[in-house]
Amino acid sequence: MQLRRVKIIGTGKYLPEHVVTDEELDLKLEVPAGWVNKTTGVGKRHYVGEGETSSSMGAKAAYAALADAGLDFSDIDCLVCTSGTKEQPLPSTAVFIQQAMGQEDSGVPAFDMDATCLSFLVGLDVMSYLVDAGRYKNVLLVATEIASAGLNWDEKESAALFGDGAAAVIIGPAGAGESSSIIHTSLNTYSKGARYSEIAGGGTRKHARGYSEEQKQFYLFHMDGQAIFRMASKLLPDFIAGMLGQAGMAMEDFKLVIPHQGSAMAMRLMRKKLGIAESRFMNITPNHGNTIAASIPMGLHEGIQQGRFQRGDRILLIGTAAGLSLGGMILEY
Amino acid sequence: MQLRRVKIIGTGKYLPEHVVTDEELDLKLEVPAGWVNKTTGVGKRHYVGEGETSSSMGAKAAYAALADAGLDFSDIDCLVCTSGTKEQPLPSTAVFIQQAMGQEDSGVPAFDMDATCLSFLVGLDVMSYLVDAGRYKNVLLVATEIASAGLNWDEKESAALFGDGAAAVIIGPAGAGESSSIIHTSLNTYSKGARYSEIAGGGTRKHARGYSEEQKQFYLFHMDGQAIFRMASKLLPDFIAGMLGQAGMAMEDFKLVIPHQGSAMAMRLMRKKLGIAESRFMNITPNHGNTIAASIPMGLHEGIQQGRFQRGDRILLIGTAAGLSLGGMILEY
Repeated sequence: MQLRRVKIIGTGKYLPEHVVTDEELDLKLEVPAGWVNKTTGVGKRHYVGEGETSSSMGAKAAYAALADAGLDFSDIDCLVCTSGTKEQPLPSTAVFIQQAMGQEDSGVPAFDMDATCLSFLVGLDVMSYLVDAGRYKNVLLVATEIASAGLNWDEKESAALFGDGAAAVIIGPAGAGESSSIIHTSLNTYSKGARYSEIAGGGTRKHARGYSEEQKQFYLFHMDGQAIFRMASKLLPDFIAGMLGQAGMAMEDFKLVIPHQGSAMAMRLMRKKLGIAESRFMNITPNHGNTIAASIPMGLHEGIQQGRFQRGDRILLIGTAAGLSLGGMILEY
Repeated sequence: MQLRRVKIIGTGKYLPEHVVTDEELDLKLEVPAGWVNKTTGVGKRHYVGEGETSSSMGAKAAYAALADAGLDFSDIDCLVCTSGTKEQPLPSTAVFIQQAMGQEDSGVPAFDMDATCLSFLVGLDVMSYLVDAGRYKNVLLVATEIASAGLNWDEKESAALFGDGAAAVIIGPAGAGESSSIIHTSLNTYSKGARYSEIAGGGTRKHARGYSEEQKQFYLFHMDGQAIFRMASKLLPDFIAGMLGQAGMAMEDFKLVIPHQGSAMAMRLMRKKLGIAESRFMNITPNHGNTIAASIPMGLHEGIQQGRFQRGDRILLIGTAAGLSLGGMILEY
């Protein structure tokens, strides 16, 4: 069963105050003026300031989502962190978000789900079944990412793509007479691409203890953009065709397509390859960069805030992630 | 809705070849002979050898579970890694397990769920809703842990508790006329205890780049056993009473209670406090130690292998985890 009678009842976003422009990165990366903008299409991204953490950002986005939903924390039955990076190896980031929200005695279940850049999409997909079944009424999903901590400035192109920030989404059961629902989700993982984007060191295989200046590249983000692009280009058309076929829908049925903001180039090519009009394709890259798993819920939040779709409209969330994974979700807002 | 008509159709376990005895640890930790055994009750635990990874262990446990279930990998619709530690910060460990299983072109969805020591219990709880709804038929859950990579040998007591290893469980829909089900799950997280057990460094807050010999304790496992014990002792009786009350059951209804093997002392006190007969309390600590999130599915696997319960019997999975989280699941095997 794919259809779940679940509703997005509130969204929130938080961006750190510190803005980093393409021009600043041109200087930092020692590239010709204009190179970063031409290569990434970002314009500006945000980096955390001193003392800001994944959980402090996540808590701010979460309270914004609660306000948007007209709910209190006491209305939340489960808190799931859906980030691609972790605040620390143990315990889960959701625990620190609960704490940063000032709810350390609440007892609200808190755990993490990780599918790298598709963590939010997967968390929304999976948790919606628990809401639909009545296990939990309101679930708070928080994606919060500090990309800037792990960038490799020697890999200029990937280093320039990313930004920090958090987004939160609250889901609950659709009311009687409401048509809000998750209609279909597809997810595929091809580990042939497991090392096309990765942070090799910092876990149990290559422990932080092995860190040295000479080994530092293994503890920083590495991305082979060309390899990802080739693999995704090959897999994506059939993936989308399969998903639309299973859902009995066409690309024209969506008021808005919200892609993971991997990179401006990848998004441009995805849009053309799948024949999506620019007016129906959400692009928040210029003010955010690639915020890892916070990217899709930020696009969702911005789409709602900007009035790009209304209750009853159908939208498509779509993206690729390190893994390599492909994910798509069709929902009626 | 709590009841899910889901069945455990196969389990598997893998332990690394290298065995480390309490006697060896007495010498390594420079404590009097017998101290480790008296303090931990472990006897022997296993540590990974050269080249062994979370994913290589997880793949072996997963293939053992497939053999036990009489299934092929092609029967699996989703692979979820439910470990408390990660092979590397990015991408998710499930991706590497898929790869280590030789299934890198399979496309089978692969992602991680993390609730530290309760990751398996939470993964089983959450994914059972997707199986019950018919979204996925067979789901492979793998908990695989290398505790030995992150132990702090200056914290003798916690260092001596842990072992490495992996366990895998396959769930599918209960057939017509079968009574197998997950009857009830309770989960609570109190982040007041967030730092009672943790690995502070290696994520985005305290990046591996900051590692130095002087700072090493921040990148290793730290546990305040006394604080956990006090908090868990206070919360556990009401937690259990609440869960049994909601499920309409009593402790006597369970053929076997399978606790997280946190430590021999914690388990002894839990058993006494909750009034559980020793004969109905699974204790695998002497041959495994605390294998983090692999602990509960290993206990489940051993309980089945040893014939401690049969189809139709009701069992209770229970534990505490870094967070601090309390979790319990009542299921009919």
